[in-house]
Amino acid sequence: MNALKVIKIGGNVIDNPAALEAFLESFAAMQGPRILVHGGGAIASRTLTRMGIEPKMIDGRRVTDADTLQVVTAVYAGLINKQIVATLQKYGCNAAGLSGADCNAIVSKKRPAEPIDYGFVGDVESVSAPAFKMFLDNGITPVVCAINHDGRGTLLNTNADTVASSIAVAMSAAYDTELIMCFEKDGVLMDKDDATSVIPMIDKPLFESLKAEGKVNAGMLPKLKNAFDAIGSGVKKVIIKNSARLQDGSGTIIM
Amino acid sequence: MNALKVIKIGGNVIDNPAALEAFLESFAAMQGPRILVHGGGAIASRTLTRMGIEPKMIDGRRVTDADTLQVVTAVYAGLINKQIVATLQKYGCNAAGLSGADCNAIVSKKRPAEPIDYGFVGDVESVSAPAFKMFLDNGITPVVCAINHDGRGTLLNTNADTVASSIAVAMSAAYDTELIMCFEKDGVLMDKDDATSVIPMIDKPLFESLKAEGKVNAGMLPKLKNAFDAIGSGVKKVIIKNSARLQDGSGTIIM
Repeated sequence: MNALKVIKIGGNVIDNPAALEAFLESFAAMQGPRILVHGGGAIASRTLTRMGIEPKMIDGRRVTDADTLQVVTAVYAGLINKQIVATLQKYGCNAAGLSGADCNAIVSKKRPAEPIDYGFVGDVESVSAPAFKMFLDNGITPVVCAINHDGRGTLLNTNADTVASSIAVAMSAAYDTELIMCFEKDGVLMDKDDATSVIPMIDKPLFESLKAEGKVNAGMLPKLKNAFDAIGSGVKKVIIKNSARLQDGSGTIIM
Repeated sequence: MNALKVIKIGGNVIDNPAALEAFLESFAAMQGPRILVHGGGAIASRTLTRMGIEPKMIDGRRVTDADTLQVVTAVYAGLINKQIVATLQKYGCNAAGLSGADCNAIVSKKRPAEPIDYGFVGDVESVSAPAFKMFLDNGITPVVCAINHDGRGTLLNTNADTVASSIAVAMSAAYDTELIMCFEKDGVLMDKDDATSVIPMIDKPLFESLKAEGKVNAGMLPKLKNAFDAIGSGVKKVIIKNSARLQDGSGTIIM
């Protein structure tokens, strides 16, 4: 099978123009089929505030009322996505920006209003592998924002980590798929106050013992859970690493 | 050659949710390869005002400074484009939203700052027929906003009528291409105060004599010039018609 990399970048790099430019130059220089998934929460929050809409979060998840949905759709699928695509084109990487509505690539289901009503927030139901394959077969790199749709005309705001792992799982039937989750640290740290204490590899037994010893911090738990879910569903390897070190061998390998 | 329709809708229909929904239902029910091009100026102007940026127009063209470019990119390529795509999906039309940066579909050149500095406004330089053909060959309908790029990382705001006619011209080498320009009237009117005075057909001699008699109003002149340019560059037929009457035989045929 051909190899495929699904790479996710979050707010820390998107919110820093110089870091984003450096990341995209590095991403464009990579070889082989790849898919980029991006967040953009900080810019969305600032835009909401500027428009007089108060950003609301519960447990780190955005409450998305109708007005907020319009703004996050504009910011994620328009402003951020198109600037990323134009920058990749500059560096010679032919890219195409996608929401889940485009090519019916990702269908989500609106999250039930109980116990917490998040509004227009979706959970991924299905990913169209043929839609992504069409681009890859034509040498085009999909750049995916975390807005998708329910197939009945409603756009939904979705967690970008989940979008990335759902794409990786769906593609793993046709590709040897690697999921690379980029963030602002060099990997999963043994000691959160020591940036150099990167754990090179975590397998399921080590994860369980780290959890039992209380050594995995709260922010990292859902990322690791997501990673092991992806591994359990066909993804070959998950790497958690620094977006500034895309092409070196750094990071924590989950397998 | 296969037939292709390039259909352009403007602000009047985009700004009216019920009219837009009806148009998209009708568009989704059409048969055969087609490309939709949309504007959205009124929503962009309202969003700018809400964000404390004063919309500036000179001779009907938007002056696009750096802040304005961010907002129009968000509104055209994000908010409007994705809502159109999601609605088409609902009606069973598999659509993909595109800016000119996506798939390197449309490259523009920044307009010179003399005699009038419009800022980040582009004039179309080239359209990639293979990019559009990839979607059409896969049964996917491109939905194009009037944001494109210069190939060097800068997004540019472009006139949607010109984007539509440039796509139609580029596609006419491979398809029998028809350009349909939708607006709020039933066609080109002989008497602008009589909505029923639609001229069924205008050819070059009639256009010249209407112009000489001062019977073409100022707003219609650039549309007709655009239409004859398209005809002169390989497009088979241009139709100017009401967006509410997409599928009947109404409108003014330019040939």
